[in-house]
Amino acid sequence: MATMTQRVKWWGWGDPSRNLELKSDFQNYLFDRLNISDRERESAHSLPEILPPNPEVAKSLSGSMEDSDRLAHAAGKSYVDLIRIRKPRIDLAPDAVVWPESVADLNRIFQVSRKEGWAVVPFGGGTSVLRGVEPISGPKKGVVTVNLTRMNRILSIDKTSHTAHIQAGIFGPALESHLSSEGFELGHYPQSFEFSTLGGWIAARSAGQNSTGYGRIEDLVVSLRAITPEGEIVTREVPSSATGPEMEEVLIGSEGTLGIITDAVMRIHEKPDRIFYASYLCSTFSEGIDVLRGLAQKGPVPTIARLSDEPETELSFKQAGADSKLGFKLLKMMGKRAYVEKGAHLLLGYEDQYLSTIGESLRKGDLIKIGKSPGEKWEKTRFDLPYFRDTLMDYGILVETLETATTWSKLNNLYQKVRLSILEAIPNALVLTHVSHIYPEGASLYFTFMADAKGKELETWKRGKEAANRAILSNGGTMSHHHGVGMDHIEGLQEERGPLQMKMLRSMKETLDPNGILNPGKLIPDALS
Amino acid sequence: MATMTQRVKWWGWGDPSRNLELKSDFQNYLFDRLNISDRERESAHSLPEILPPNPEVAKSLSGSMEDSDRLAHAAGKSYVDLIRIRKPRIDLAPDAVVWPESVADLNRIFQVSRKEGWAVVPFGGGTSVLRGVEPISGPKKGVVTVNLTRMNRILSIDKTSHTAHIQAGIFGPALESHLSSEGFELGHYPQSFEFSTLGGWIAARSAGQNSTGYGRIEDLVVSLRAITPEGEIVTREVPSSATGPEMEEVLIGSEGTLGIITDAVMRIHEKPDRIFYASYLCSTFSEGIDVLRGLAQKGPVPTIARLSDEPETELSFKQAGADSKLGFKLLKMMGKRAYVEKGAHLLLGYEDQYLSTIGESLRKGDLIKIGKSPGEKWEKTRFDLPYFRDTLMDYGILVETLETATTWSKLNNLYQKVRLSILEAIPNALVLTHVSHIYPEGASLYFTFMADAKGKELETWKRGKEAANRAILSNGGTMSHHHGVGMDHIEGLQEERGPLQMKMLRSMKETLDPNGILNPGKLIPDALS
Repeated sequence: MATMTQRVKWWGWGDPSRNLELKSDFQNYLFDRLNISDRERESAHSLPEILPPNPEVAKSLSGSMEDSDRLAHAAGKSYVDLIRIRKPRIDLAPDAVVWPESVADLNRIFQVSRKEGWAVVPFGGGTSVLRGVEPISGPKKGVVTVNLTRMNRILSIDKTSHTAHIQAGIFGPALESHLSSEGFELGHYPQSFEFSTLGGWIAARSAGQNSTGYGRIEDLVVSLRAITPEGEIVTREVPSSATGPEMEEVLIGSEGTLGIITDAVMRIHEKPDRIFYASYLCSTFSEGIDVLRGLAQKGPVPTIARLSDEPETELSFKQAGADSKLGFKLLKMMGKRAYVEKGAHLLLGYEDQYLSTIGESLRKGDLIKIGKSPGEKWEKTRFDLPYFRDTLMDYGILVETLETATTWSKLNNLYQKVRLSILEAIPNALVLTHVSHIYPEGASLYFTFMADAKGKELETWKRGKEAANRAILSNGGTMSHHHGVGMDHIEGLQEERGPLQMKMLRSMKETLDPNGILNPGKLIPDALS
Repeated sequence: MATMTQRVKWWGWGDPSRNLELKSDFQNYLFDRLNISDRERESAHSLPEILPPNPEVAKSLSGSMEDSDRLAHAAGKSYVDLIRIRKPRIDLAPDAVVWPESVADLNRIFQVSRKEGWAVVPFGGGTSVLRGVEPISGPKKGVVTVNLTRMNRILSIDKTSHTAHIQAGIFGPALESHLSSEGFELGHYPQSFEFSTLGGWIAARSAGQNSTGYGRIEDLVVSLRAITPEGEIVTREVPSSATGPEMEEVLIGSEGTLGIITDAVMRIHEKPDRIFYASYLCSTFSEGIDVLRGLAQKGPVPTIARLSDEPETELSFKQAGADSKLGFKLLKMMGKRAYVEKGAHLLLGYEDQYLSTIGESLRKGDLIKIGKSPGEKWEKTRFDLPYFRDTLMDYGILVETLETATTWSKLNNLYQKVRLSILEAIPNALVLTHVSHIYPEGASLYFTFMADAKGKELETWKRGKEAANRAILSNGGTMSHHHGVGMDHIEGLQEERGPLQMKMLRSMKETLDPNGILNPGKLIPDALS
């Protein structure tokens, strides 16, 4: 039964055998920036004690109540989750874990849970960074976590329509590997790609690294099936419809509170041979934003677009410079040293090499072309960053990421306000930012903040996170561009939507889950009350 | 007060001074196809008698109860509406018409109507072809039609973000003319463009002739405001969000049953100097579909794509040939006569001339290039077709249009089944079809059917429409691709969505309009019951 337990670290990110060390040059630089004097790494994590379960849950559902399974489903993968899970004692874990293999299994789980009073927590890859999979019982007498990764098949590929019918529990690599063998690609690559599932992406309204080109997950859903405690919903498999309001868009982003997505027909495309990368150094982040706006509005629209602000550029070039011929050394040779120290790295990826060089906005401004290597290197290591978080946490360093989006005319102000508000809340923090997705009318902003938080982990995190949230809401951002709501953005959701939209959401909950068994405490915890 | 009355024909389409005659060659051809022997046109339409109103409605709302205003708001513009409105006596008309100028006006209208028990029918341009604006009182004691066309300003243009904040009651031409003076375009051109409004487009989930390039109306909405009897909803003005389920998508397509959309921030783009057209003749409709699929999936994606089936191609070339050097005459000179008689006309429009010729799929197959003139002529006359319906109706000819969409692999079958089912229901009908919108995973189908229905108008219409609806639902189509639901697609909506999605929709109604004052009888007439 302990499939998941073998697969990922219970105390951190991903493959338990992978441990990414910091290069010493880079570590010195980073610790210096964070005002950390010499400190030892604490990398041994001993299994925590875990509270005994309510045995009735496993019994009624033929589930597992083994400690290893309960631990593997006790938390998501946010900084706060990892702080909690690294403690000697775990107070919150599901009473049982089940691995349904069919819609019939799910219906049985709902039936029993409704009758017995269990809370049902849907679980894909468990990589939520907003506490979306936290096994909270709410008013219920027990919690069963429903791991969907045995519903993991590609049911069919329609090569004429460029669609694939896929079960929700499939992980990213298995999905793309299967599609790739048929010449196709879904092209959805969130940071969590290796350890998250299709159903999780849809439930959390995800976007991935190539979504500027291929669209966000909601753009890729042609139709979906969701099983709710009140029955099944299957949306129509058509490219577009004017047959009334779109209920699919209510299920996408519902984060397991309205139903469990079991399978979906997804838009796929012919897999390109490769992505051609082109990197540029812009004199400022703001200049880079103008370049991206030109590409988004006049084309050619890239498949991948990332623009790091000056601090992120400096840090990433330091990191690259420490172990390659890239970065500082190369640019020093080009005599552009001054530029690098305040420049902003723009990374573009296109399916067509020609396109990566012809954007009108690329020819404007004072861009320095730095070739394809940064992009190619980024592609190879693009899923590694969360491993570094584990390492940094071992040194007592807080690493939090958050993201938002707004229209182009508000983007620079939003960027400054969020950045400054984090720095005000945590004066010694290092705040790094990049634009990760572009649209004709605006773009996303992805913030990473790091700080020495040894011994004051949660209070430091809370100060930074709350400051960022306030700045986002009061400067025209959205509470989340692609991470979702979970438990950390509940107030933000309410403020962003206003009372009447919240009433609509709560009435959806009453309609689909009138007994409130699905994912208590998330998204709309005050529904049914 | 009688703004609208002056603007459009009460008994037909558009500008009362425009009357489009059939060229005699074409008329002979058409009447021959429809088995009509010589028949006189009955083009005099005398004002019908109109039932007296409940005077309390106008009194309580300071509205108009003039006959001319009531008549102008008594029906939409479907064939069934026009048959009804051309009768000597009108049984269904609003008791009063009001023209709110602000959100405060709307709130007052809701307040009074709730208190007094009036039904509120929102009305933009009134061009619904599915009886979406029919002034039905349901269980209420009177009906007020709320004409939104005085809320018709462009509030602001954000040239950086390529967005415009626009009031819902603006008509298409005023909207585009204003944007055009600033170098921008919304690019939404439904057949009704000249006489329909932004709010109507959003409320009915509209698509226009350039939507393959610029996106459907829901793709163009960045944010919107809706006033409901329970308060105001304003969605967040951001390009994309993962902050929970998307409630905007519940209001888009709600057809005035959940709230009244007052204004929206819309995505706009720099207006191209012109559209470059290229027409091709495909050997069959099916070959043309393959070409379109190639363009949709591999590019270059056209701004406009229309592919007529063989009967529609023949008819349109007959019509063009009768009054221009185009069509038959030209193609005869090219020695391709045989081809024309069974060919399918593919019309493409691109912002860039170069793109209109380079699609890989255009080079495959046996396409005959017939140049730019058919497209240029189409552009000039593209909003004229409904005028011809008036003329044909004067001759006792039924003209109905309906549309659907499905994935590419189901498209040919859906086309055949809908076409044949109409022909089975009305053996003498002429059924014309074109693909009007393409997507990577599928396309729309737009059907026009004509038949001699003199003296048996509604029964003939009903036979054809019901047969088409059944064929659409049982062959994987959607009940509507861009016309909406209104009253004619209520059963189709229920069948397409299934009981649980309908329950979701009804709970939205209970939440936003608990007294059921908004647009009774449409979309979800069984809500609140």
